[in-house]
Amino acid sequence: MDAQNELKPYVIGLDLGGTNSVFGIVDSRGEIKATTAIKTQIYENVDDYVAASVEALQVIIDQVGGIDKIKAMGIGAPNGNYYNGTIEFAPNLKWGHDGVVPLADLFSKALGIPVALTNDANAAAIGEMTYGVARGMKNFIVITLGTGVGSGIVVNGQLLYGSDGFAGELGHVVVRPSNGRACGCGRKGCLEAYCSATGVARTAREFLATREDASLLRELNPEDITSLDVAIAAGKGDEMAKEIFDFTGELLGEACANFAAFSSPEAFIFFGGLTKAGDLIMKPILKGYNEHVLNIYKGKAKFLVSALDGSSAAVLGASAVGWDL
Amino acid sequence: MDAQNELKPYVIGLDLGGTNSVFGIVDSRGEIKATTAIKTQIYENVDDYVAASVEALQVIIDQVGGIDKIKAMGIGAPNGNYYNGTIEFAPNLKWGHDGVVPLADLFSKALGIPVALTNDANAAAIGEMTYGVARGMKNFIVITLGTGVGSGIVVNGQLLYGSDGFAGELGHVVVRPSNGRACGCGRKGCLEAYCSATGVARTAREFLATREDASLLRELNPEDITSLDVAIAAGKGDEMAKEIFDFTGELLGEACANFAAFSSPEAFIFFGGLTKAGDLIMKPILKGYNEHVLNIYKGKAKFLVSALDGSSAAVLGASAVGWDL
Repeated sequence: MDAQNELKPYVIGLDLGGTNSVFGIVDSRGEIKATTAIKTQIYENVDDYVAASVEALQVIIDQVGGIDKIKAMGIGAPNGNYYNGTIEFAPNLKWGHDGVVPLADLFSKALGIPVALTNDANAAAIGEMTYGVARGMKNFIVITLGTGVGSGIVVNGQLLYGSDGFAGELGHVVVRPSNGRACGCGRKGCLEAYCSATGVARTAREFLATREDASLLRELNPEDITSLDVAIAAGKGDEMAKEIFDFTGELLGEACANFAAFSSPEAFIFFGGLTKAGDLIMKPILKGYNEHVLNIYKGKAKFLVSALDGSSAAVLGASAVGWDL
Repeated sequence: MDAQNELKPYVIGLDLGGTNSVFGIVDSRGEIKATTAIKTQIYENVDDYVAASVEALQVIIDQVGGIDKIKAMGIGAPNGNYYNGTIEFAPNLKWGHDGVVPLADLFSKALGIPVALTNDANAAAIGEMTYGVARGMKNFIVITLGTGVGSGIVVNGQLLYGSDGFAGELGHVVVRPSNGRACGCGRKGCLEAYCSATGVARTAREFLATREDASLLRELNPEDITSLDVAIAAGKGDEMAKEIFDFTGELLGEACANFAAFSSPEAFIFFGGLTKAGDLIMKPILKGYNEHVLNIYKGKAKFLVSALDGSSAAVLGASAVGWDL
């Protein structure tokens, strides 16, 4: 393998997001040698998307010495299925929401190299294990807190894919079985409806509508409030904003207590925009966890924030999937 | 290994229960060649328990040709920790409830053979994978419905032990976060408080106390009602008894829907006394699951009942842990 890595020292990583598709060419030490990006959603169909990707990629491929230097490609994508290399019914992708898109195959044919694909949260977990805070860990759970809540679960040193490639959808564990919030998945009470960035904004609107106390958030149009607004207000000492993070974190910690009863991980690793709130979110997570976890797990798991930079972590995670090919 | 198996063709399996400890000598095809049993709880301390076990075992060991024919021993025990070979704080064991008992070591020293120990539900899972309905499956969850609710989770063909050996305590996932029933673990709303045999009896008492309709169960002293009484009444067509099973099964199915979001198993396999109720419990499980599971998992998982005979399954499962040594 070392000999082969000398001949083909790079892999391509693609972090396929709802807005941007970020490509990086990565070496075996996790150094990103070149990057490029295209908009994900301006293409009518997946063939146009792949063609535009390959055109953008060609520039950075040439920079590192041509396609012969590239061993493989790894893709992290929403609703990505590792077993099939497909994106399946991804609600937020214009060209992927109502069917099964064989994206790994399409890129493999267009580039002439092996391509592996996994879901974006799994890619983040592989990135953490290969280059981040989970190096050396064999049992951990990555929870991504973005527009939605995703997860990548590693057990016995391996990513948990389950029987169909779709294991680890912890954002859709129901945490409030009665009177739960409607979730984008069509059900009610999912973790994602509370602890995603959009969940935080919903909590803000609920608090504003049902409470009377003053808050900096009252200066904003409720419909426009984002989790960033809440973080900024909390940073200024706004009590309601801090309580919104308390509510979010404690519920997330309570959910993690249930997850511990499943895989008893060494660490929970949080990733994504909401983690920028730091202690505002992490302290309530720990509080909720300690209040709800079964005795035998108490005090065992670490609660960590990803130390990898957001977009490069996703590209690195995707590239790590490629190295495994 | 085959050569070694010819020299040492047997392992000892021990199903260590709160009432009985059942021993079997098992060959590599899963045939039980000899069995014996002792009472688990009549001994003041673990040394006396091990001594009595060895005395009983000696008889059946001699029957198969002596200790030289025995490769190893496997134990399935409540609160068993595979990593350490210990029983830790087992609430229902007189000589094991307030500390860490190095049971594998004690048996290994007494018998002079390697001994492995795992929790009883994990032993059931290994038994199903080695000899039962899970043969050939790589991702499944065994749920034991007895006095408590236990679980053994298999992913990628391996038992999930987690970072500390205590993964897979699905009986203590909180399914009713508000107004949940008190659980023996000291928390509220655990699956075990509803879907164990004792949970079924509690449901019966609740229904009897809060409803007015006639039922065969009203002929019994509420405090003495067992899950078996409920099953017998349901078998006679008693409506309330059937609704008790509906309630139990639907809640269990709802919980399984959340478990699917974790490991997306090929099958859920139910094991233990309550499964004897057959369709009375299995149909509501499936109904609850289908009503609550995320779209991407719908219609994928099988719902199976263990086909292994109760006590021999546990012994076989324990023995399978020994074969791995």
